[in-house]
Amino acid sequence: MSSDKADTKRVLVLDDGNFGSCLADHLADIDNDVFIHCRKQEVIDSFNTHHRNPNYLQDHIFSKNLTAIGPEVPDLGFVSTCDVLVFAIPTQSMRSVLESLHLDKLDPTRLPQLCFVNKGIEMGTNKLPLEVIEEACGSQVAHVSTFLSGPSFAKEIVKRQPTQVSVSSTSIQHAQATAELFHQPHFRCYVNTDPIGVELAGALKNVYAIASGVSGGLGFEANTRAGLVTRSLAEMTRIGVAYNADPLTFLSLAGVGDLFLTCSSEKSRNFTVGYRLGKGESLEHILETLGSVAEGVDTAKSAYAMVQERNLHAPILEHVYRLLWKGESAKDLAKALMELPMMEEKEGMSS
Amino acid sequence: MSSDKADTKRVLVLDDGNFGSCLADHLADIDNDVFIHCRKQEVIDSFNTHHRNPNYLQDHIFSKNLTAIGPEVPDLGFVSTCDVLVFAIPTQSMRSVLESLHLDKLDPTRLPQLCFVNKGIEMGTNKLPLEVIEEACGSQVAHVSTFLSGPSFAKEIVKRQPTQVSVSSTSIQHAQATAELFHQPHFRCYVNTDPIGVELAGALKNVYAIASGVSGGLGFEANTRAGLVTRSLAEMTRIGVAYNADPLTFLSLAGVGDLFLTCSSEKSRNFTVGYRLGKGESLEHILETLGSVAEGVDTAKSAYAMVQERNLHAPILEHVYRLLWKGESAKDLAKALMELPMMEEKEGMSS
Repeated sequence: MSSDKADTKRVLVLDDGNFGSCLADHLADIDNDVFIHCRKQEVIDSFNTHHRNPNYLQDHIFSKNLTAIGPEVPDLGFVSTCDVLVFAIPTQSMRSVLESLHLDKLDPTRLPQLCFVNKGIEMGTNKLPLEVIEEACGSQVAHVSTFLSGPSFAKEIVKRQPTQVSVSSTSIQHAQATAELFHQPHFRCYVNTDPIGVELAGALKNVYAIASGVSGGLGFEANTRAGLVTRSLAEMTRIGVAYNADPLTFLSLAGVGDLFLTCSSEKSRNFTVGYRLGKGESLEHILETLGSVAEGVDTAKSAYAMVQERNLHAPILEHVYRLLWKGESAKDLAKALMELPMMEEKEGMSS
Repeated sequence: MSSDKADTKRVLVLDDGNFGSCLADHLADIDNDVFIHCRKQEVIDSFNTHHRNPNYLQDHIFSKNLTAIGPEVPDLGFVSTCDVLVFAIPTQSMRSVLESLHLDKLDPTRLPQLCFVNKGIEMGTNKLPLEVIEEACGSQVAHVSTFLSGPSFAKEIVKRQPTQVSVSSTSIQHAQATAELFHQPHFRCYVNTDPIGVELAGALKNVYAIASGVSGGLGFEANTRAGLVTRSLAEMTRIGVAYNADPLTFLSLAGVGDLFLTCSSEKSRNFTVGYRLGKGESLEHILETLGSVAEGVDTAKSAYAMVQERNLHAPILEHVYRLLWKGESAKDLAKALMELPMMEEKEGMSS
């Protein structure tokens, strides 16, 4: 399908994690010239010699169009030669990376396409990625930044399993450009212009995946999970509306799509944390033995602060926060949610 | 929790199928006087002697507050003594049952509460339950009719697994009355006033469950399923908007909740039909060996006629129809959906 592409792009992907590697491979596979920044020389060597990432997607042989660079962060000279920058860095380090890149020193009329795929809320500030970009690079860069999000396990993407994602930006033209860059029959992109809704959904889904895990750990079955996921979506939508997001964004691939994937995957780390809490294990013990980070644990704290500040009705989020950070038991969480007063189904979901 | 109830209601449930039995048990268990209509004497005897339904939920011992009646359909004299009628009859027979009950002969100011839990589209007419009620009983009865729908496997409800449903009516007061009747900590009811949206979602979900099954049968994994379910929801929403439904209804328990349950359950009949088609079996052979009805097969035909008539963009529905009724292969279905032109994510989803 690469013949559909207007031309070959020069792409820089930061960094070499699970999702960054998989997107670099995807773009390289459709004949772009792709560079992936790696923080360790051994990873650079592995990519460039064996077309392997030693840390992620180990079974996959990466595209030969992919060149690893680093370990220093590329300087503005290199960045300015790129048509596209893909940021696949943790939300907690995006501010420092953006500040070190000095994108504000580039000619604003000739900025590379900017695509962010990280999710979450910046700790301490409780800011979303779009807000961090605005503070670090100015509103002009934020306006043209694009955000790719949706139900997309990296290990399935590298197998060319059909995957569909949302691409969002306050600028529809920029969203379309990013969508056209990534779009393939096996990787379909749908554009929308509500990055705040997309980012809220991407962050909050991890908290609700913990709730879904708790439900499973307590022995509850399919009705309970489907009901909980739906009421989680209603809650996300209410929070979104309070942030001036479009409620219909929560019907998107970045919204319900990613929530569906995360809350129904026994393999997701956040689901697992909830499941083990539901079985009665302590959070401390779970986090010690999990072997990786479950983003929902910290996001619950930031998100709880956000809803408290705005006085929003978000009982599922509130009880997950209490479970994680205030010693509430999984059974008390379930009891509290089951005994909530009756309410109208769409209350607070319209702007 | 029955002490919360204002008073005991006299309830008639029609009929003794899987979902009717489970709801009759639920209402009886919270101290209502519940009658369930059965079409066979042996079923009546089994309920009244052993508190068992020989055909459904066979492991369950039903409430002793439940009395089976029949096999004749109760006459208007009996019906007029009831506070509540719960219709759990197939959509294809609701018109004849309603006509035989002559609800239009009751004092319209003293109608019993009317709760419908059937789903689907009437074949031949392509009408939704609300429209059938209006034609069979008049607009006054239709206005106060209530519709209960959501992710609710009967076998989990009788185990008191936490379940959450939508209760919808054009009359908010009547929706609330039905919600209050059913509401318990383990059976939470959320009201909305968009029965058309609720009914469309309830019917169409079975078609999309076939698509989800096809995806599984073709070997596609979690990304594909989550993406397909999300785009199915977008399609349902577009169809809903064309019927003047509220797009946010598709975020409800009756909308995304039931879709999520149906499309992710390997036990669902509709999913199974799709799965086996994806594996290359013929529809004829599948239907011969399935041992029960898969409603989505007929609904695909009615729904396809509905979207053709209104010239709506519903490619997933259209290809499921072609797969079932026009000999398209599962692989062609997948290829066609993957090669659709790019579009904006929320196109057609606003009224």
